[in-house]
Amino acid sequence: MRDVAVIGIGCTPFGEKWGSSFRDLFVEAGTLALDDANLSGEDIDAMYVGNMSAGRFIEQEHIGALIADYSGLSTRHIPSTRVEAACASGGLSFRQAVIAVASGMEDIVVAAGVEKMTDVGTGASVDALAGAADREWEGFVGATFPGLYAMIATDYMSRYPLTREQLAQVAVKNHYNGARNPIAQFQQEITIDTVLRSSLVADPLRLFDCSPITDGAAAVIVAPLDRAREFTDTPIRVLASEQASDTITLHDRRDISTLDATVAAGQRAFKTARITPKEIDLVEVHDCFTIAEICAIEDLGFCKKGEAGMLTMEGVTALNGDLPVNTSGGLKACGHPVGATGIKQVYEIVTQLRGDAKGRQIDGAKIGMTHNVGGTGATVAVHIFGV
Amino acid sequence: MRDVAVIGIGCTPFGEKWGSSFRDLFVEAGTLALDDANLSGEDIDAMYVGNMSAGRFIEQEHIGALIADYSGLSTRHIPSTRVEAACASGGLSFRQAVIAVASGMEDIVVAAGVEKMTDVGTGASVDALAGAADREWEGFVGATFPGLYAMIATDYMSRYPLTREQLAQVAVKNHYNGARNPIAQFQQEITIDTVLRSSLVADPLRLFDCSPITDGAAAVIVAPLDRAREFTDTPIRVLASEQASDTITLHDRRDISTLDATVAAGQRAFKTARITPKEIDLVEVHDCFTIAEICAIEDLGFCKKGEAGMLTMEGVTALNGDLPVNTSGGLKACGHPVGATGIKQVYEIVTQLRGDAKGRQIDGAKIGMTHNVGGTGATVAVHIFGV
Repeated sequence: MRDVAVIGIGCTPFGEKWGSSFRDLFVEAGTLALDDANLSGEDIDAMYVGNMSAGRFIEQEHIGALIADYSGLSTRHIPSTRVEAACASGGLSFRQAVIAVASGMEDIVVAAGVEKMTDVGTGASVDALAGAADREWEGFVGATFPGLYAMIATDYMSRYPLTREQLAQVAVKNHYNGARNPIAQFQQEITIDTVLRSSLVADPLRLFDCSPITDGAAAVIVAPLDRAREFTDTPIRVLASEQASDTITLHDRRDISTLDATVAAGQRAFKTARITPKEIDLVEVHDCFTIAEICAIEDLGFCKKGEAGMLTMEGVTALNGDLPVNTSGGLKACGHPVGATGIKQVYEIVTQLRGDAKGRQIDGAKIGMTHNVGGTGATVAVHIFGV
Repeated sequence: MRDVAVIGIGCTPFGEKWGSSFRDLFVEAGTLALDDANLSGEDIDAMYVGNMSAGRFIEQEHIGALIADYSGLSTRHIPSTRVEAACASGGLSFRQAVIAVASGMEDIVVAAGVEKMTDVGTGASVDALAGAADREWEGFVGATFPGLYAMIATDYMSRYPLTREQLAQVAVKNHYNGARNPIAQFQQEITIDTVLRSSLVADPLRLFDCSPITDGAAAVIVAPLDRAREFTDTPIRVLASEQASDTITLHDRRDISTLDATVAAGQRAFKTARITPKEIDLVEVHDCFTIAEICAIEDLGFCKKGEAGMLTMEGVTALNGDLPVNTSGGLKACGHPVGATGIKQVYEIVTQLRGDAKGRQIDGAKIGMTHNVGGTGATVAVHIFGV
């Protein structure tokens, strides 16, 4: 198999994009990525697009063909494929693009992600998102996503020494980072008090523990490493691309506070890349809720179970800490357009490894990781990148 | 890249499966495929599943994780990925499985397809299917799928010498074949009169020109060719795996009676397999409507434009003809559970190349082809198989 590199990246600003359609969003992201790689559409061999639920959000399926068509690429009849794994759709789209290039089947491949969530009301949106969990055993009996992650938080806090303030600090840190990211949905700093005084959503999770409903799209372009310098002076290598599954329901898990698919995908990724967690300079983890970031840091092997809250409060995961986590602002502050999130994580790591992250730049960053979760952990994609 | 072979196949009976859930269907197909390959779940390295619109049919997304979980494979945390391309979802799922094995990334991979369409009413089902076309420029202004294919038929019949009786003969032939296929939804023969006297759906297409709403699932297992004989005495080689896109709307096409994505994918497949159309012993084409089979036969290069109706009436595409088309009964008579169709086509070709098709067996069949279309031709997958 061939080594693969990222040669171009693009991302729309995230937010409530009333003025942009689903189609506008992915064309904007794709154009930015092509410009970034000094490519035109003529150079693209294939596309993958991550999208969770356009069927329910905009009554449109067949997203691969739609994105190829509106990107002006269907006249060349390139393969264009939609990949879906709920909130991990973007991560899996990226992985399929990597496999297509690594296999030798394609050379220049776009991996995109897009979601337009605000064209339906909040109730319909929450119901569509419940399709990421088990509809029959969770959704139909009233479990929403905040409810499911609240169960994880409750279980976790009953077994490990995580305080409410430490949990809030995850959101405080991510808003601090988001305030330094021009594409972030929320670019304002908050305090622990902001979180603790916000509305209770599902005990113990409050409004500021939750990622928002977001519109947005992101696109990255991958190529064989040995051709990457034709297109960019700063190719970023894909050192590992791994994916794992788990039971779709929480009640079937061995331990609901440990996401075994994160553990499995993380371990495989470190093995493939032949590095240890200590060598990671920064990581984008899937913080759909604050508790999810706590679990991710531990399940990826960056510290022992029960320690992530303390490390967060000590600043270890802050911009100037030893292991910066979610420098983009994460899902919490940068926003969470579901299918786009996994690609936005790649966009952030590549931006950092290129040294282009300006006010949130991690000096000397050489190895970065992305961690993208579907549902409550039934799908996890982990990627490791290096300069 | 490595050569790939199909080592196991399974398919549920197709029909209105009131007694089976979405989950029951894919577990049934997967179990049949594992048994056929003498494998257990422990042997599977990864899964792909084609599904068009579970979000709208059963309010469930995250189908890759769901299928891995209910197949008992999530405890090993294998990658499991849903692929969507409307009615070509199954064909693209198979292609991703082929790429995963060809790349060397995985060894034993399941490619499945499933759709449970009858859990919603016919109106909701037709509306969900309209998500395969352009919702904004076709669906919202009233174009249904029968309406779009009726436009193709009207255009075609105004330019080429296709008679209404020749069109009906496509359905007559496919029902004849379906009557010899134990998994077919419709196992009764019909006459040209049956078609011509059936209700008008969208002029000139009548009820018996249209494929039905169907529940069903199919699964096949692929492996590296050099390991295939560990699992089966009759491995079937994948000689070509190609995919093409086109504009999602009909009105943007160069010519609505020619599916350019079929032309492109077909030409690439013949080139990859290094054979000509004359060497194909049988083909499963995407006959969602009778006119679609006429176009497919021509666009794949089996005859000139305008000749397929005459060839059909002459029996060239019948079971005992020179080029048997849709020996399974096709979408028309075997049924069309959208996401499963592309995998069912592979199931049929493998069954034929093994010599196991009993009453519909094509004697001495050595090379077969599948042709799976999304929407009105915005995505096409073509595969060629050999003994």
